[in-house]
This record gives sequence, structure tokens and C-alpha cells, in this order.
Amino acid sequence: MQNQQVLIDSLPDGKLSASNYRIVDTPAPEPGDGQVLVQTMAVAITAGTRAGLQGSASYAGAPQAGRVMNASGVGEVLASNASGFKVGDRVTAPTGWQQLSVHNVEQLELIDPGHDPLHYLGPLGINGLTAYFGLLEVGQPKADETVMISAAAGSVGHMVGQIAKLQKTKVVGVCSSLAKGEVLMSNLGFDAVVNYRDANFRADLKQATPEGVDVYFDNTGGMILGSALFRLNVGGRIACCGVVSQYDTAQPEPGPRGIPGLLVNKRITMRGFLVFDFAEHYARARKQIHGWLNSGEMTSLTDQIAGLEQAPEAFVDLLAGGNVGTRVITLDR
Amino acid sequence: MQNQQVLIDSLPDGKLSASNYRIVDTPAPEPGDGQVLVQTMAVAITAGTRAGLQGSASYAGAPQAGRVMNASGVGEVLASNASGFKVGDRVTAPTGWQQLSVHNVEQLELIDPGHDPLHYLGPLGINGLTAYFGLLEVGQPKADETVMISAAAGSVGHMVGQIAKLQKTKVVGVCSSLAKGEVLMSNLGFDAVVNYRDANFRADLKQATPEGVDVYFDNTGGMILGSALFRLNVGGRIACCGVVSQYDTAQPEPGPRGIPGLLVNKRITMRGFLVFDFAEHYARARKQIHGWLNSGEMTSLTDQIAGLEQAPEAFVDLLAGGNVGTRVITLDR
Repeated sequence: MQNQQVLIDSLPDGKLSASNYRIVDTPAPEPGDGQVLVQTMAVAITAGTRAGLQGSASYAGAPQAGRVMNASGVGEVLASNASGFKVGDRVTAPTGWQQLSVHNVEQLELIDPGHDPLHYLGPLGINGLTAYFGLLEVGQPKADETVMISAAAGSVGHMVGQIAKLQKTKVVGVCSSLAKGEVLMSNLGFDAVVNYRDANFRADLKQATPEGVDVYFDNTGGMILGSALFRLNVGGRIACCGVVSQYDTAQPEPGPRGIPGLLVNKRITMRGFLVFDFAEHYARARKQIHGWLNSGEMTSLTDQIAGLEQAPEAFVDLLAGGNVGTRVITLDR
Repeated sequence: MQNQQVLIDSLPDGKLSASNYRIVDTPAPEPGDGQVLVQTMAVAITAGTRAGLQGSASYAGAPQAGRVMNASGVGEVLASNASGFKVGDRVTAPTGWQQLSVHNVEQLELIDPGHDPLHYLGPLGINGLTAYFGLLEVGQPKADETVMISAAAGSVGHMVGQIAKLQKTKVVGVCSSLAKGEVLMSNLGFDAVVNYRDANFRADLKQATPEGVDVYFDNTGGMILGSALFRLNVGGRIACCGVVSQYDTAQPEPGPRGIPGLLVNKRITMRGFLVFDFAEHYARARKQIHGWLNSGEMTSLTDQIAGLEQAPEAFVDLLAGGNVGTRVITLDR
């Protein structure tokens, strides 16, 4: 049995391209004592993994040329030398972009047989948990407040907006096209959307936030963060989740000009967070998210692409804003 | 009786100079019904008032050409048409740079006869309260943590350091000369000081903070904030108090490059504050600060300059880093 893998061929110098990857077939790995062999069903394509390709320190670590591209995945146990996991179990695992992978049990989590495994790459996985804790614990929105979200059509953003609506807030999404915005408004209940690529972005944002912004969920940093600072109300909160505007470049921008001046004038709190810091509360969050999915109060937008060999192009396209919802690559069995 | 006043003659275009002011003598004002006439004993020279001279929005308001320069002062009641204030009482008031001023009672606070009036421009005034609440409520240092302070020899900074030492933390001050730093270490118990004007500033800061920084009390923004971000530990807090690096210029710098990326990676909280938000707790804070002054646990460094006509040069020099401690202009009686 062969193991198709997508390797990092070179670290990008500037924008990422599909040619930074190469596809190889290697022999299937063998699980050792206490280990589990997993066959990948699907992997998530997420902007955060681009940060690691800078070759510098980031929370995502620093992948190196010649290694399998890192990714969260879901899969099925093919062989197990570990108690607690048996053949046929479905699990979440840091599979990377490959068909087969071997894991110690600390890296695995069993998927409830009653749940759609793909939800573990979306609302019940890191993306959904990030949206949940980032909005509720860091942003702390109150009813009738205005919540602004950047990368609002992304894997995290589209769930932040829905959770914010469940808190009875007004939700304004920033995304890269009005077509995406239409989906957010029609299907997910966003109150307004603004296209940051439009020349009138600042004026449009002002018009979309007549009562200012109380909570800004920041997935991008950069210009959108700078614009948000001008709309934030006194006592506003910024949940700093990611910096997608700065990932796909060798030359990150300076920070917004209003920092720290506007933070002082408007007594704004800006807090960076990683979802892993909330790990002890995952079970509670998943129970609530699962309830919302079952009741129809939350919709998981999933953008499925078949075939591991599509992963590099799908990733490049995602970094250019091509996705709506959680992008996953599904693998043949 | 004449009233010597220092007027804003023109708003600065670039760096402030003494020529942006002019001195005039005007007739003494008359207090109306419910008003109090105050003779200024001293005024505080503080960097924050420079922000208002930008002519744009700031918490300090926007002074205009032709008006008396704004400042906090202490003085003696010369005449009173208001109950609760009698001739000879000492008060704090927004006197501005002038000998005589008329106030409604809401603008006045009686000075306890047992206290040094100048302390109301320092440790018991806005500067001391800013240090107290900014450090304890916003920064929230714990014993054995490292607290870093910019503009550490300034009116706020030198008190932040002392309050931080009282919390049993390690205190590292950033200032503009080693001579100032020597005062902070010898007289006030700072553990280390670093000169931001030294070419080796970043390396020196690293050496002075071997265990990183847990709380950064930011009076400056700009390059020092950027450097602090690299030294902050996971879970670090930044109390954003002021932006002195950006006040004395027509062209503020961009924000630090690490925002928001480093905030995310290190889960840093950055919070802007204004002391006025803590007004209901002033009495408690003053009681504690007064206790520290009496016991000798806190030293108020006061940098006194005699004569209102010296105020413009003293302000320009303060913005260039010329002061150690709270700079006040004392007036003849």
C-alpha cells in the first residue's frame, strides 16, 4: 500500500504558489507500540498554516522543506496498537496532507459516531472552537452591541457571525466580494457586509456601523484593523485571532497608525488569543455548538474539494480569498 | 490687579517651540455667582497636554490659538461666591498657565491642609492616580513578575516604578539618559534602567529583562512599544497610558510591526485607559498613596521651575526628555 503525500518543496519567497509543493508516493507507515495508523478522510485548508511557512516563529511552528505539509484532518483507524482506539474508529488527527499517518494517542480524539466527521474540521473543530471562545470569552459581546468581523466568510468568521447573532447583536462582516457577502446575509443572517477591496471601503464601513463597533473580531490585522479602530466605540474590545493580511508575504506591513493612541483615547482592549488556551472548556462548547447545528440555529458552510493533489492550488486560492466557509480536501477511500 | 497669562499664539506645525506661546497681562477676572477666584500657586507641565495642540481629537481636547494654555494647577482661594470654599482655602483647579482664574465649584477640589499642595500635582494628583490605576487595575502585576515602564523618569513613570516595587515585582525602566536612570535606581529602587537613545537599546533591554516582561506600562508608544512586544511573555499585559513619542510631531509613526501578530502568538492583552474612568475610586487610592508618602515607601520627585514665563521653555524641554519626576512651574504670590 502506498501513501500519497504532499511535501513542502520550498519555503515561499513572497506569495505562496502551488509550485512550493510536490506530490510523492511513499511506502505506508507502520504503527509502533502504542501507536495508531490513520487513513485520512479529509483535511482542513486554513490560512493559519501559511504563517508557519514564513520560516520564522509562529504559533503554528515552522514547517521545513521536504516535510509533509501540516494540516488538521479527520480519518479512520486502519490499525491500532493502542488501547482506546480500534479499527474503524473515526478520529481527528494532525494528519497533514497525506493519505496515511501514524500517531501517538495524545494526538487523537475519537469522533462521536453520531456526528458528521467533517464537522470536526468546521464547527466542532478548531475553527468552530476558535470562533466560540474568541467571540464569547475575549470579545464578550452584549445584546444590541455591534460586532464587526474580518475574513467574515472564512472558516472562523462565518461561525463568529452566527454565534454573534445568537447573542442578539448586530453583525457586520468584512469580506472580499459582494457575492460572498450575499451568502452571509441571505444564509447566515448577517446584518450588513462590506467589501474591503472596494475603494469606498472606509465610507461603506462607516455607513454599515451607524452606532460604531463594540466588538471587533480580527482575523486579518493590517488595513482592516486600522479601519476598525476608527469605528470602535469607547470601551470597545478587539479579539485578535489571526493576521491573514500578513501571512502571504515576505514583507509584513507596519501596524495600524492608531496604535496605541486610539486605544488610549477610546479605552479599547485588544487581546490576542489561541484556542488551545481554552482546551479544558472544549466539551462544553462543542455541546452548545452541536445543539445549534441540530436546531438549525447554526449552519456550517463547507467548501469541499476532492483529491489531495488539489490541496496546493486550493490553499493558494484560499489565501487569495477564494473560499466561502470552511475549505476541506476530501480523499478517496 | 493684573493677571499674567501664557496664551497659545499658534498651533505648532511640527515640533513645539516656545514661540508658539506669548505672554500677556490682562485685568483680573471677577468671580460670578457660585464661582471662586483662584490664585495659582503652581501648575504641572505634562506631556499629555501636547496631544491637544495637534488640533485634532484627543482626550485632552483641542486648545486653540489665542486661548490660555491648559494645565492642572493648585492655588489659593482669593475670593469666593460659592458655599464650601472660603478665602485662604487651597484647591486643585484646571488653572491653565495664568496667575488668576475663575471656576465653578465642580472644577475645584479642596486640598487637605495637612498635605503638601504640590503633591496634588504629583502623587496625589492626576499623575499619581494614573500610575496607581494604570498599574494595579490595568497591568495587574503579580509578585516576582517583571514590570517594564517607558518614560520611566517622567511624572507618571517614576511613580509606576515605585508602586510596582511595592507589589514585589522586578522593575525595569526605559528613559532617555543614564543620568536619569541612576536616579531611578539609587533613589527609587528600580532594578534596572535602559536608555532608549542608545544604539544598543534592544540588546540592552533584552539583557535587563532576562525573564521577559509580564507587564509593560506604556507612556510612549512607537519604537519602545515595538521593542517591548518582543520581550513580553505569554499572557503579558500592556497598560496603554500615553503616546508621548507621537505627540510632538505633525507626522505620527505607523504602529509597531508586531501588532496584531505578536499579540496573538503570545496572547497579550493591550488596554488603553484614562484615569478619569476610575474617578469613583480616587479617595481610596489617595489614602494608600498618602500612606506610602508618609512612611517613606514612596518618593515624589519634583522638578520645580519658578515663574510662569518659564513655562513654554520648560514644556518644550520636557517633551525633549529634560525632566526627572513631575515638572511644576511655581508662581510668586
